[in-house]
Amino acid sequence: MSDLSHIDGLIAPRSVAVIGASDDVTRIGGRPIAAMLRAGFAGRILPVNPKRDRVQGLPCYASVDDLPETPDAALIAVPAKLVPETIEALGRRGCKAATLFSAGFAETGAEGEAAQRALVARARHHGMRLLGPNTLGVYNVGIGYYGTFSSSLDTGMPRPGNIGIASQSGAFGAHLGALARDQGLGCSVLITTGNEADITVADAIRWMAESDSTDVICTYMEAINDAPALLAALDAARAAGKPVLALKSGRSAVGARAAASHTASLTGDAVVADAVLSDHGAIVLRDPETMMDIAYAASKKVFPARHSLGVVTVSGGAGIVASDEAERVGLPMPAMPEAAQAVLKAALPYASPVNPLDCTAQALNDPSLLDLFTRSGLEEGGYGAVLCFLTYVAGSRAMSDVILEAMAPLRAAYPDRIIAFCALGEREVLQRYDDAGILVFNDPCRAVRALDAILRLGAAQARGPGPALPEVVPVALPEGPPDEAQAKALLAGAGIAAAPERAVQSAEDAVAAAESFGFPVVMKILSPDILHKSDIGAVKLNIGSAEAVRAAHAEILSAAATHAPGAVVTGVLVAKQLSGGVECLMGISRDPTFGPVAVFGLGGIFVELLNDVALRACPFGPETAREMILSIRAAAILQGARGQPPADIDALAQMLSRLSVFAAGAGARLVSIDLNPVLAMPEGQGAFALDAVIELDGQEEAAHGH
Amino acid sequence: MSDLSHIDGLIAPRSVAVIGASDDVTRIGGRPIAAMLRAGFAGRILPVNPKRDRVQGLPCYASVDDLPETPDAALIAVPAKLVPETIEALGRRGCKAATLFSAGFAETGAEGEAAQRALVARARHHGMRLLGPNTLGVYNVGIGYYGTFSSSLDTGMPRPGNIGIASQSGAFGAHLGALARDQGLGCSVLITTGNEADITVADAIRWMAESDSTDVICTYMEAINDAPALLAALDAARAAGKPVLALKSGRSAVGARAAASHTASLTGDAVVADAVLSDHGAIVLRDPETMMDIAYAASKKVFPARHSLGVVTVSGGAGIVASDEAERVGLPMPAMPEAAQAVLKAALPYASPVNPLDCTAQALNDPSLLDLFTRSGLEEGGYGAVLCFLTYVAGSRAMSDVILEAMAPLRAAYPDRIIAFCALGEREVLQRYDDAGILVFNDPCRAVRALDAILRLGAAQARGPGPALPEVVPVALPEGPPDEAQAKALLAGAGIAAAPERAVQSAEDAVAAAESFGFPVVMKILSPDILHKSDIGAVKLNIGSAEAVRAAHAEILSAAATHAPGAVVTGVLVAKQLSGGVECLMGISRDPTFGPVAVFGLGGIFVELLNDVALRACPFGPETAREMILSIRAAAILQGARGQPPADIDALAQMLSRLSVFAAGAGARLVSIDLNPVLAMPEGQGAFALDAVIELDGQEEAAHGH
Repeated sequence: MSDLSHIDGLIAPRSVAVIGASDDVTRIGGRPIAAMLRAGFAGRILPVNPKRDRVQGLPCYASVDDLPETPDAALIAVPAKLVPETIEALGRRGCKAATLFSAGFAETGAEGEAAQRALVARARHHGMRLLGPNTLGVYNVGIGYYGTFSSSLDTGMPRPGNIGIASQSGAFGAHLGALARDQGLGCSVLITTGNEADITVADAIRWMAESDSTDVICTYMEAINDAPALLAALDAARAAGKPVLALKSGRSAVGARAAASHTASLTGDAVVADAVLSDHGAIVLRDPETMMDIAYAASKKVFPARHSLGVVTVSGGAGIVASDEAERVGLPMPAMPEAAQAVLKAALPYASPVNPLDCTAQALNDPSLLDLFTRSGLEEGGYGAVLCFLTYVAGSRAMSDVILEAMAPLRAAYPDRIIAFCALGEREVLQRYDDAGILVFNDPCRAVRALDAILRLGAAQARGPGPALPEVVPVALPEGPPDEAQAKALLAGAGIAAAPERAVQSAEDAVAAAESFGFPVVMKILSPDILHKSDIGAVKLNIGSAEAVRAAHAEILSAAATHAPGAVVTGVLVAKQLSGGVECLMGISRDPTFGPVAVFGLGGIFVELLNDVALRACPFGPETAREMILSIRAAAILQGARGQPPADIDALAQMLSRLSVFAAGAGARLVSIDLNPVLAMPEGQGAFALDAVIELDGQEEAAHGH
Repeated sequence: MSDLSHIDGLIAPRSVAVIGASDDVTRIGGRPIAAMLRAGFAGRILPVNPKRDRVQGLPCYASVDDLPETPDAALIAVPAKLVPETIEALGRRGCKAATLFSAGFAETGAEGEAAQRALVARARHHGMRLLGPNTLGVYNVGIGYYGTFSSSLDTGMPRPGNIGIASQSGAFGAHLGALARDQGLGCSVLITTGNEADITVADAIRWMAESDSTDVICTYMEAINDAPALLAALDAARAAGKPVLALKSGRSAVGARAAASHTASLTGDAVVADAVLSDHGAIVLRDPETMMDIAYAASKKVFPARHSLGVVTVSGGAGIVASDEAERVGLPMPAMPEAAQAVLKAALPYASPVNPLDCTAQALNDPSLLDLFTRSGLEEGGYGAVLCFLTYVAGSRAMSDVILEAMAPLRAAYPDRIIAFCALGEREVLQRYDDAGILVFNDPCRAVRALDAILRLGAAQARGPGPALPEVVPVALPEGPPDEAQAKALLAGAGIAAAPERAVQSAEDAVAAAESFGFPVVMKILSPDILHKSDIGAVKLNIGSAEAVRAAHAEILSAAATHAPGAVVTGVLVAKQLSGGVECLMGISRDPTFGPVAVFGLGGIFVELLNDVALRACPFGPETAREMILSIRAAAILQGARGQPPADIDALAQMLSRLSVFAAGAGARLVSIDLNPVLAMPEGQGAFALDAVIELDGQEEAAHGH
């Protein structure tokens, strides 16, 4: 894990040199200086430009060597070809952090990539950290530091606040910053990482996780360039109680095409990334507006322990719309206790006090009803959050006086819950509610989605950390590709059961094997030379007696002798014939970003047509495996739908967990594992891999190492 | 279909009496007068109140009888108990339209419902139309008519425009109006229908469809009280080229519970309602924000014929986010033609000109790039809409001059396409783009969703009206419940094929039947007294020869004689045993709102666990049936996935269409039909119902009639 101290200098410098400083406030070398002057940056700004004595009223220095002090940070706004010597001069001078606005590196092709690598080597030599190249830079609102040339500042400066943004894309990061500002939200920092030659979004997230100024972390990623660092950063943020809202683009075929052409690195599989980021506590989103809504709610730092919503409404219709959205996103809206309903009904006979709690337009004449219904939702309903649909009613100044008087004591009495309004009106009026600690949304459905995210976070925090990861021991893999029997043997060593089977050399051994398993059994020829055993009659199913075993043994050997006279026959395989279970599929694939990923699904159409699978990075324990198994849409089939007996989900979970541990221990040579089908027998009767294929990569070990 | 002339008087009156007029501008009888005075209503306002000579500066009349003229409309703001005499007085006076603000009718229970029915009878007697009771009323922005007591006007008056709103819920309708206003959108009318004792949202929609002032119709419904009128209104709006955006609440279990308790009528099945409303051209939504976004886009009245999107962006990241959203909602983003890509690449070497078309931040220095990329998207790309992601860059006044200069000629050159911006900034700056005919959104994903809806509408308009509905002829149903054979015979009369089968009385007849069908066959006992035929061995499958038919015949009769000695045996059924097809399910259920609805799905888990079905109101033709069949998620199985031969979808579509025609002709006694399974054979080999159950309702005909 990289040292953050120099990143601190990059994001919160006490002095900054601007190499290529300009008097023109619309140029890359002029914008940062103008912004810092406007914002009253408390540190020293040190312009460097050989052609000027002063820049924007500040003393200007001819070169890095002429600087009167070693700056904490440098902003480099010179053409690409001048960047190496600039880095060198800064390094000699002892500067430890540089932001490289300059473009023309890895994003332009192989030559630029080589130049970029050389830059990093040069910087490392001097112990200097680099942001960029091809970055829009950084701003740090609290100290007025604007190491950025973003024109987003032309339409207004950010408001100070506790929402931090880390983005690979400069323009998109600045869009998020401007969106926050236009929605009245306060930001701490914006960090855009560009080509990520050195500093990545992972570093930026970790810096924010450790910084006092940031409580909510928004991040936009196109490619994950250092997965272990990113996951460690997410873990650090989670440990610090700071939500991470992640927008990972490149989900669609079109999007992935654009991402690959846009950045210098490949976009990983979005589905895997979603699963892994969520697993590390990130809230994965797909649109900036939802990100800002959740960031707004999270910025208040109230994360109730219960994932449940009460809706108090002056409009029955709005209550229904909000309820529909809650059901759609899976946010529970339990009914009020009957005794509490009776109390509310007594106070307002026409009320519908179940949940939504409809206090009708009567609450406008009598705001004590609003207080009563909301209080009852918090106290008797016990909801993690109560959303009050007040629409334009809350938007007039006169009503806001009355409403605030009713709600302020409630806000104080339930500090660990959320009270949110859906309200329309002038920003100044709505701001009064926000100032009183009440969340304000314009749209009931956006409110429901944001509250759902916050309540899920709160419930996860209340549950505490998940189960510890299982211990991984290195797995010795064979040199060459394992055949089915070897694959099953390898997996058996990891505790993964196949159907009982035995290779035999005689008819009597076959009978003994069959009797030890119990009938019926399956028998097939064992020969490395015979691929299509069924086609030549060398596979027999459903063999039900000792006599039939003897007959099958003879027939199989005879079929092999007749149809494949030259083949080496090493014996006959006798296996217990299993039936009555549910066919599942388990597998491992190596994700280029996250390493081995386990997948679980039901056999057949569920996987092939509906893509109904659960994914997880390896390793994980049986509790997690159980969650995965139950998370697929078709899980009801395993639980006993359609008259089937419930399947042995415990055994499946053990097998899936052991498979994940095996994959984690097998290292980078393991390309994939397919257990297809796995037969999940009825409860208590186990789960068995009926086939196993392990694919190894002998040659490209280095390419897969991380 | 009801006469709209009196509704016209209700929504656009030249004179309005206010019964229960008040000087207090916060009271129900005071608010409408204050609002009309503020808005400069051009008609006459006639306050009625026995206790006052003047109200809010206007002459006030002691009673309806004292009015100096017959008003076009009356607003009734008196307590429920005084409403009947008020209606009577207005009726005597010749007033033809009254808005009943008063509550205390059907929403309060059986007594109120009876009072409400009596009101309607009294009004009908006088030829008077009623809005409400329990309505928030109507406003008509263009003429300054405010027949409403909504406090939404306290936070500002609506802007004039061409978006009309019809809502059952008063507060929610007013919320939509306030939302439109706060988002800078212009409205024509707001009509809230309350208890819908007489006038329904269907009437309101039809009025808007015929009114020149409205081009886009937004509607909010909790219950559909007059389905044929609603569908006719939707058809009228579609014929007039006016999009209807429908928010039908009560989707969720919680929502439906709230809807039932909130209104005086039951909420129909939301899934059926969605399907039927969509089928009649409505855009069905679930949140008010999306409704307003689409209404905004539709208000410009440009509906391109091609459902395709081009994205021009100054930020690669934003282009990807927009692409991901487009893929999610199913909006195609075809790649640019290669020749056009080459031209763009020549103009800007680092551009990524596929689609999204990334013109990079370089477009800020050279706005001609923005023009070039957008023009190329419209011309060579041929996209129905081009969305330009310009974010804060477009938000400064200086840049807006430059951008408008570049884009205005384009706007003029492609009047049948949409140009939309995603931009952040002050409303005044963004308004300049809107004034130039460019749609402006803050969020790229909201923009994509709104454009998708508009482009779908445009493509549907370009396709023209769908196929004509098939002719329905009345079906004669039996008195009692039909058994399987009778059900199959009834359906056979409608052209719906079962597997070939014949009842026989001898072994030789059985052989003849089997030989006429071809082997194998199925045989089973025919007896009204034996229910569980398989259990006693009276069903034989897979009978492959004449000899086996004779044996089976004897065994079946013997099994029946042994195990059910007293049963009446009417013969033996011989049926062709079909195999090799795909098991499907077809059925009819009677929706309480929309009558017979056809459902199609694949057999088994697809329906039971995944609810993967297509729905449609009956009747419909085979083209529509084909669309339904291909719309299910598992349609690939019918098209030949997993190594199966493609199924006979034409035969399935014919069967489904014929079933819909049968159901439409069967009338209200038909409760349901289940054809489960229907076996879809390989292409060219037909589809056959293997079982058929028809449920009739003899007793409750009246209850099901509509």
